[in-house]
Amino acid sequence: MTQSDPSKAQPPKPKNVLFIMCDQLRFDYLSCAGHPSLSTPNIDALASRGVRFNRAYVQSPVCGPSRMSFYTGRYMRSHGSNWNNFPLRVGEPTLGEHLKRLGVRNVLVGKTHMKADDEGMARLGIDPDSVIGVEAAQCGFEPYERDDGLHPTRPGAERPRYDGYLEAQGYPARNPWEDWANSGEGPDGEQQNGWLLAHGDKPARVPDEHSETPYMTRRAIDFMREAKADGRPWCLHLSYIKPHWPYIAPAPYHDMYSADDVQPAIRTDGEKQNPHPVYGAFMDMRVSRNFSREDVRRRVIPAYMGLIKQIDDQLGLLFRFLDDEGLSASTMIVFTADHGDYLGDHWLGEKDLFHEMSVKVPLIVVDPAPAADPTRGTVSEVLVEAIDLAATFIDYFGGQVPRHIVEGRSLMPHLLGQPVAGWRQFVISEYDYSMQDVRRTLGREPAECRLFMLFDGRFKYIHAPGFRPMLYDLASDPDEFRDLGDDPDFQAERARLRDWLLGWALTDHNRITMPDNRIEAYSPAAQLKSGILIGYWDEAELAAAKKGFGLD
Amino acid sequence: MTQSDPSKAQPPKPKNVLFIMCDQLRFDYLSCAGHPSLSTPNIDALASRGVRFNRAYVQSPVCGPSRMSFYTGRYMRSHGSNWNNFPLRVGEPTLGEHLKRLGVRNVLVGKTHMKADDEGMARLGIDPDSVIGVEAAQCGFEPYERDDGLHPTRPGAERPRYDGYLEAQGYPARNPWEDWANSGEGPDGEQQNGWLLAHGDKPARVPDEHSETPYMTRRAIDFMREAKADGRPWCLHLSYIKPHWPYIAPAPYHDMYSADDVQPAIRTDGEKQNPHPVYGAFMDMRVSRNFSREDVRRRVIPAYMGLIKQIDDQLGLLFRFLDDEGLSASTMIVFTADHGDYLGDHWLGEKDLFHEMSVKVPLIVVDPAPAADPTRGTVSEVLVEAIDLAATFIDYFGGQVPRHIVEGRSLMPHLLGQPVAGWRQFVISEYDYSMQDVRRTLGREPAECRLFMLFDGRFKYIHAPGFRPMLYDLASDPDEFRDLGDDPDFQAERARLRDWLLGWALTDHNRITMPDNRIEAYSPAAQLKSGILIGYWDEAELAAAKKGFGLD
Repeated sequence: MTQSDPSKAQPPKPKNVLFIMCDQLRFDYLSCAGHPSLSTPNIDALASRGVRFNRAYVQSPVCGPSRMSFYTGRYMRSHGSNWNNFPLRVGEPTLGEHLKRLGVRNVLVGKTHMKADDEGMARLGIDPDSVIGVEAAQCGFEPYERDDGLHPTRPGAERPRYDGYLEAQGYPARNPWEDWANSGEGPDGEQQNGWLLAHGDKPARVPDEHSETPYMTRRAIDFMREAKADGRPWCLHLSYIKPHWPYIAPAPYHDMYSADDVQPAIRTDGEKQNPHPVYGAFMDMRVSRNFSREDVRRRVIPAYMGLIKQIDDQLGLLFRFLDDEGLSASTMIVFTADHGDYLGDHWLGEKDLFHEMSVKVPLIVVDPAPAADPTRGTVSEVLVEAIDLAATFIDYFGGQVPRHIVEGRSLMPHLLGQPVAGWRQFVISEYDYSMQDVRRTLGREPAECRLFMLFDGRFKYIHAPGFRPMLYDLASDPDEFRDLGDDPDFQAERARLRDWLLGWALTDHNRITMPDNRIEAYSPAAQLKSGILIGYWDEAELAAAKKGFGLD
Repeated sequence: MTQSDPSKAQPPKPKNVLFIMCDQLRFDYLSCAGHPSLSTPNIDALASRGVRFNRAYVQSPVCGPSRMSFYTGRYMRSHGSNWNNFPLRVGEPTLGEHLKRLGVRNVLVGKTHMKADDEGMARLGIDPDSVIGVEAAQCGFEPYERDDGLHPTRPGAERPRYDGYLEAQGYPARNPWEDWANSGEGPDGEQQNGWLLAHGDKPARVPDEHSETPYMTRRAIDFMREAKADGRPWCLHLSYIKPHWPYIAPAPYHDMYSADDVQPAIRTDGEKQNPHPVYGAFMDMRVSRNFSREDVRRRVIPAYMGLIKQIDDQLGLLFRFLDDEGLSASTMIVFTADHGDYLGDHWLGEKDLFHEMSVKVPLIVVDPAPAADPTRGTVSEVLVEAIDLAATFIDYFGGQVPRHIVEGRSLMPHLLGQPVAGWRQFVISEYDYSMQDVRRTLGREPAECRLFMLFDGRFKYIHAPGFRPMLYDLASDPDEFRDLGDDPDFQAERARLRDWLLGWALTDHNRITMPDNRIEAYSPAAQLKSGILIGYWDEAELAAAKKGFGLD
């Protein structure tokens, strides 16, 4: 299945990857990305040690499918896990499997949002408790600590380790995650549900050290300590749940920022005038209506910023640990997010659509090797897709990227400052809105609820089956206020981008069992040699062909 | 995974399907389809008992991918088995699995061209000798007799049962299939290789009864006899290897037809003038050059016709068996082919491209139920795709077609004469020419060698990435002589068809783990009930929402 060439692998020097992901972190909520009042010195320092990719896009602006793309290196249309809790089909090749072949452990601490294909596993007789079963159920990860940061009380559901941790610290509850780590308190000490946006200004009911971000940081450190004894190279996915909702931060982060730090919403009244039907339906959702209110933004955004600040502080500790343990020189560090957050921009809450603050993510990659010195501290404007990371990691560990499976491209040449011929002309992102109430509003069948974004670095074309497309020109309209989707002046642009979309859609996505090199090895001579004689007239012609092929 | 509703299944009355396929049988080489000198009375009688679909198209005009589409109900772009011996990825849902859930055995006698995904199976720890392993390796079939009709001598390869049968009949050889059943003899009794077209006029070196078609017919009868004791309903795929090459028939079929029966080639000199580059490259293949010769056609086509005649005779015996055993009243009978054969038409040999004689196949469906009486003996002009058969069989056995997996549509309404609203507007066929030498001629990378046909019943649009499209108007040009692919008068048609192609390409193909009914069951109320509270401002809003959803 893979084209990996073991002779190209470099086992002697231990190399690792620390693959850090935040959940719902906007690209522009970092000081190195220009946020005016949010200070993230540790992330900024990371950027100064590597390349900050300023045009990195996720393959779907919602957790589940975005992550399945990160973890498989494949587009949403390819892995088929279209939305949260759509199981990843059994047998879908994962980054973990590619790394395993290179002798590298792929380890998880935190969130993946993976939903196992229990039915498919049963169909194929795969025991979920076997090594292969766990790998299939965990999206190719060795789950050192799996925690999706979403613990609604379900009878019979397995409780994450963090719940037990909280109980041991003296926070008993049926759901300590919700009641303590993600709730605040009223004036009389009564619990106030952190799910509700109104409580964003309260401190969480656990101190900083017992909240999720420090806990996960410590678990990552635990793993790296243990891995030292193990000796095998690893790719550790440290996947923070924050700054994803519930928007509530522990002290002192809950009031480190105030309403004064809230940036003006990026929106215009014009956007509400006769919007594209799909956009209009999203604007009409509860979360969008609430985030369109200034009082909501002023209550929530400081908590969101506090949660980011907490992550930055924890990363400071983590990077110091790497330094102290001598790991920094052998460990590639990646920092990114699974998607952004509208926070009221464009009259929207959550994510789901394709404006920059939703679909574009922060991405910093540090390759510690001396060969990457020339690019340290630079900002790259190349068009990057989330699926590129899987390819990058395979490449980093010395493998050949199996291009018939992994659809992303290695970023290594960009890290090494090498010239790259024929880089991609556009990025793609997809969205399935069948699980949103928008489906009913628009009267669509489940299979009809699809959106496709194609962005070429200037024009952002959004194909919406059943509706006209949307189009934004980010050169003249960087804030994406003017939808040119039905502007007659841009018909040629739309036709060009639609043709590119067709080209993308028609490329293979399922030819995963046949690598290119096996195709290239086939020929009329190979066919003849196998004894399959198609189209030969007689013995003389056959003899001549054999001679011509050097087979006689 | 499936939406099958057990309560809808109808176990009491045993129902069966006899799913007969020929290999490489053109749609027009049957007397019921108008062949002027080839007489196929048994197939004609079958047509008079059911519906003959006159516009049935395969999903790829070559054995492997076409069959994988028949056996999964999914387009080539979906199952990913793009060409012969491209393994079908493990876990790809098959017709056999859908039928199993309905208590129906899916049984094979003959050819599937299935290549197991050994690597994928190993990766998932599936024992190839287990029940599940065999099912996965055999494309969902219970292999009563697997025989792909292609026995080149490979050291260590498992020999099919038919080879042993021939040996037992007194035809010893390292490869008795090739040396006896598919060779002729020269004047001095010397073996003459039946692979070579020049020997098409010789009788095979085994008598009729020991040749492949009668052998497979008897094996089908063996199965049906045994199945009677078993009692479970079945779908038997009787998959004849003929009239596929080697083009050599046993006596008396080898000279039942003569050069006088050879129809004039459907071709014009104009087709060779500045042809589309892909078409031109195919015309330049050895098999095309040889089939463009009249002497070759006159040698080979009578053998091809003889092989068809032999099948018709065997089907007569088979249908009589069904009558005698009382099976005819409970058994749906389907007769079709996996693709056609150019036989020199359009200056081409083999199949691979999208002219009617290659991509269109015969299709007869007989539903014995009285409800189907109104359509008996009719010819239907609805646009049918090969993937419709899997859906038809599931429907016939009382299952719900899982539309998120099976992309074909049940033909049952057409068999019952029921009005069908919203039938498809076009059929699709795909081809991957990366394994053909054409790839080198055209200087293409393996991933770039794709063709897509979209036929709307009048216009046949062929999208050829890297080249201009081809276009044929079958209303004014039924023989497909005039390529309108760059005719400025047809720009609007091409744009319309290209947009349809885009729509098709962008539909889901991998969302196989999430059925529509589970999507429809999800709603803001369901979300709230699960404890996920997105976008609520405060307790009052939450309480109001609960009340509104009837959850308080």
